[in-house]
Amino acid sequence: MKEISVAEFFEKNKHILGYSNPAKSLVTCVKEAVDNSLDACEEAGILPDVFVRIVRVDKSVYRIIVEDNGPGIDKIYIPNVFGKLLYGSRFHSIKQTRGQQGLGISSAVLYAQLTTGKPATVVSKTPKQKAWKMKIAINTKKNEPEILSEEEIVWHRPHGTRIELEIVGSYVRERKQSVYEYIRQTSIVNPHARITFVEPDGKVHEFERVSNEMPKIPKEIKPHPHGIELGTLIAMLKSTKASNLKRFLKEEFVRVGDKTADEILKRSGFSGRENPRSLNRDQAERILKAFGEVQLLPPPTDCLSPIGSDLIVKSLMKEFKPEFVYAVTRRPKVYSGHPFLVEVGIAYGGNIKSDRVEVMRFANKIPLLYQQGGCALTKAVASVNWKSYGLQQSKNELPNAPVVVLVHLASTNIPYVSESKEAVASIPEIVEEVRLALQEVGRRLKDYLDRKQKLQRKRKKEDALAKLISLLAEKVCEVLEREPLNAEIVVARIMGKVYFERSFENGRVLLRVVNYSKARRRFRIYEMCDGSVNGDGEVVNSSPYSTIFWDLELRPDEEVIIEYECGRVINPKPVVEGLEEDIVSGAEVRRSSP
Amino acid sequence: MKEISVAEFFEKNKHILGYSNPAKSLVTCVKEAVDNSLDACEEAGILPDVFVRIVRVDKSVYRIIVEDNGPGIDKIYIPNVFGKLLYGSRFHSIKQTRGQQGLGISSAVLYAQLTTGKPATVVSKTPKQKAWKMKIAINTKKNEPEILSEEEIVWHRPHGTRIELEIVGSYVRERKQSVYEYIRQTSIVNPHARITFVEPDGKVHEFERVSNEMPKIPKEIKPHPHGIELGTLIAMLKSTKASNLKRFLKEEFVRVGDKTADEILKRSGFSGRENPRSLNRDQAERILKAFGEVQLLPPPTDCLSPIGSDLIVKSLMKEFKPEFVYAVTRRPKVYSGHPFLVEVGIAYGGNIKSDRVEVMRFANKIPLLYQQGGCALTKAVASVNWKSYGLQQSKNELPNAPVVVLVHLASTNIPYVSESKEAVASIPEIVEEVRLALQEVGRRLKDYLDRKQKLQRKRKKEDALAKLISLLAEKVCEVLEREPLNAEIVVARIMGKVYFERSFENGRVLLRVVNYSKARRRFRIYEMCDGSVNGDGEVVNSSPYSTIFWDLELRPDEEVIIEYECGRVINPKPVVEGLEEDIVSGAEVRRSSP
Repeated sequence: MKEISVAEFFEKNKHILGYSNPAKSLVTCVKEAVDNSLDACEEAGILPDVFVRIVRVDKSVYRIIVEDNGPGIDKIYIPNVFGKLLYGSRFHSIKQTRGQQGLGISSAVLYAQLTTGKPATVVSKTPKQKAWKMKIAINTKKNEPEILSEEEIVWHRPHGTRIELEIVGSYVRERKQSVYEYIRQTSIVNPHARITFVEPDGKVHEFERVSNEMPKIPKEIKPHPHGIELGTLIAMLKSTKASNLKRFLKEEFVRVGDKTADEILKRSGFSGRENPRSLNRDQAERILKAFGEVQLLPPPTDCLSPIGSDLIVKSLMKEFKPEFVYAVTRRPKVYSGHPFLVEVGIAYGGNIKSDRVEVMRFANKIPLLYQQGGCALTKAVASVNWKSYGLQQSKNELPNAPVVVLVHLASTNIPYVSESKEAVASIPEIVEEVRLALQEVGRRLKDYLDRKQKLQRKRKKEDALAKLISLLAEKVCEVLEREPLNAEIVVARIMGKVYFERSFENGRVLLRVVNYSKARRRFRIYEMCDGSVNGDGEVVNSSPYSTIFWDLELRPDEEVIIEYECGRVINPKPVVEGLEEDIVSGAEVRRSSP
Repeated sequence: MKEISVAEFFEKNKHILGYSNPAKSLVTCVKEAVDNSLDACEEAGILPDVFVRIVRVDKSVYRIIVEDNGPGIDKIYIPNVFGKLLYGSRFHSIKQTRGQQGLGISSAVLYAQLTTGKPATVVSKTPKQKAWKMKIAINTKKNEPEILSEEEIVWHRPHGTRIELEIVGSYVRERKQSVYEYIRQTSIVNPHARITFVEPDGKVHEFERVSNEMPKIPKEIKPHPHGIELGTLIAMLKSTKASNLKRFLKEEFVRVGDKTADEILKRSGFSGRENPRSLNRDQAERILKAFGEVQLLPPPTDCLSPIGSDLIVKSLMKEFKPEFVYAVTRRPKVYSGHPFLVEVGIAYGGNIKSDRVEVMRFANKIPLLYQQGGCALTKAVASVNWKSYGLQQSKNELPNAPVVVLVHLASTNIPYVSESKEAVASIPEIVEEVRLALQEVGRRLKDYLDRKQKLQRKRKKEDALAKLISLLAEKVCEVLEREPLNAEIVVARIMGKVYFERSFENGRVLLRVVNYSKARRRFRIYEMCDGSVNGDGEVVNSSPYSTIFWDLELRPDEEVIIEYECGRVINPKPVVEGLEEDIVSGAEVRRSSP
């Protein structure tokens, strides 16, 4: 019988940490290093600039280099951070971070050592210290770092960290589960980060910063009384420094003020003056029971750092150019005392061609690439009845439609199914929140699809009408020996639309606009031209094309004619903004940018 | 920055060990205790007698009691076994056991403490010591046991261990993921164990011992050179006691003899006289490369303890009474230096009514109840093209047929996806073996289904023929004014069958048997009767019915008539054994018991 070191345990069970095959191991190593870089930058309030390079050293041996502009690591901590498992700064703090356990990067070092026998090479510099370069191995029997060499070096960065690992791996380019995909998805949900990625063949991918705003830095909070375990409460009572029970409640928990503390004390039969350290198991149980009975505010949001529905919409727009996009950020909730919140984005059509829904899963802004089937987030998507939102679906399966669903779970403690952080466990509270968020975006999608269908029906009717009228008009004109009639304007008048007509006369452009609808309409018309533009609209000169636009307001049946001069009109029809598509005839409608 | 204890880590991440919801947590606690009991009995060569009781203490609080007749635990080890995570005897040994990490039972103690604040109560007695009763808690900050009380007691067992835990849980009776199902499946693959299970409502289930034979005790082996990691090899070189490199190879690895050692040395450019402790990384790499180049026997089987195809067939027969059953035990293979073997059983029809295949997964004789979708064993079943074996199937999904597939993976190191031991990771070597085993049973199933279909077609033809002949015979007899003819015997003669006809005359039973087939036939006829039986066959008297049987051998066209007396014949037709169903007419065919 003997003790087993954590390092030995994880060396033997490396698949638990995501090292189950060469391709996945390579992704995992990159992921651990990049997650660390992003966490470090975020905590120090630095806009991250991360450099990732993968070099093929031998048939199945790759060198991984990850370098960041983070705050750097103080020299005395470097060996433990990289050479000791379960060592870190974030385990005992309650706030949203990518890494929590102090396992990630040291497990990558362990994997490198196991497969190639080579130590990690670390360079790190804080603003105050010189740069240090160390070669670090792990003594697995003791779970302690071994420093093989250390030297002070001159480094080009004012601060930052660089790690170099050599591992047995396999580099794949396939879209779904690859280093490229991990970095692409990471950049989608971290728009404030710039990531440069150099592939083994030398190809460089720049994932540019989309936003220069730092995400709000999540604040550390105290535990929330709802859902806390009895054992945890007993341990907290034993080790508290509070002088009495009431102070203990107010000081060691979030959302417990004077009034709530009194109510808890009353319900559990305490005065509040008791010494918390003297309470026994049964007394603690009474307090726990009272916790469950009192109404409490949900935990504060500021320990969580959501992406934000605006940025999700922007990212999905940029990535898929869909015809419809919508996103929600739900309010924070609690499971087992851990605050969490769910964000969901949905994109439909446009560049999304596949007829099977794509689910992009994120946990604390980390893309989850593996174990899609075993993940509660995927299951929640499959469990929603998408038929009622207008999508095809077999019961309890992912819907069949050109749809991308983005699900982001942010929490102070993501309940991963395993330490490899690939899938979220089925916590009922979380599944419920994801479902609610999905239903919310689902309803919006349904509205859009309904509108679209209605519009299509209307247009069909109009097309039929237009054909009929043209024919009729032609015949009538023939009989009356009149000039052929413009059928479009007749249809516009009958259907109650705003009618646009562009014509050219003596080198000038004429725009005729008639409001046949029953309401007063305000809108803007654009024309895009080359050559010099001359007219009474506002002109925005830029190369190669210029834009001229007019803001109009027309009463019912009012008509205006606008004239301007230019070299050549570029857009096939005038562009209008501020009117719904179904009441416009003869112009292209541009939606206001979201 | 600080160190995190393993106990703190797993307390915060308890879902990783299988404690993700109250129902599952209850199953996990029982499982950990029962697995330990079975392991302990098996190692000591004791036929296990395990008692499991669950008592409802409060709305959501349950007491779990698991007691065994194992060898007991020496008093000095008790606290660490139950109160320290990553402590055990099996981690460093290479052989097939249920528990390996020294995590299971101590994690259950940790979960009990976290949810109810109560310590574990352990009673254990070895044959040499008196029985000790201890209350044990875990100091999570240090990952060390705390003994709250200890006393010597009088216990009724000569040796064994009993553990009592109180946890927050939920008791479900639903078939698939429950304590009952875990115990039922455990007894299927552990036919040498007797398990008594008392449910919270007092209902007692006895899972009787089916076999009195102890499974072969797996032997500990040394690592196999194929698939070993470079880091492991370097660590082995560093810590070996062998005086030279050749001795190191021969003594520290299995399947490396004098000749193989010489070949490895030659290929890696060593003489064999080198000091193994002085080798550097690059030299170790050369040896590893040579390992991959030499032909080696697979690792010995005796470190593994398969269930055996016979017992799998017996268990499936007992459980499902199927119309077809088959099982294979594959030869052992290696992945990453770990020997493993795969067993697969298949059962078709009979009591299996569901049209969706049921996959029963086992790892080292432990039933896997959760994460079916995320398990490589399930995926392997889905990846086989079952259409070519006569079953309906959508591509890469489980087939739709009344089929039960049992998959057992035995290994010295099961590659679980996570520490909760619910699903096997997708190791290519393992998936391949499972697929090969499935294909083997699939081919047998196909043979059976083909035969069945052929028989059905033949019978259809016969039925048509019989109808035609009856009609014809009737008409002919009418015309010729003859007694109506027996159509069955005519069909039997035309189709070349063995014909049986039972008739009664003066209180005696007459069996007429004619061999219309073209070959000499040997078979046995049974009749089941009540009252006293009198005839020249062998009589087996038993209550309430007796059986009389005759062994016959008939040449082609030979006819016999057997006479006997009895109170009443029970079976509707005579029963015959030793003939294929498709050549029998007028009797029921019994298959020889497998």
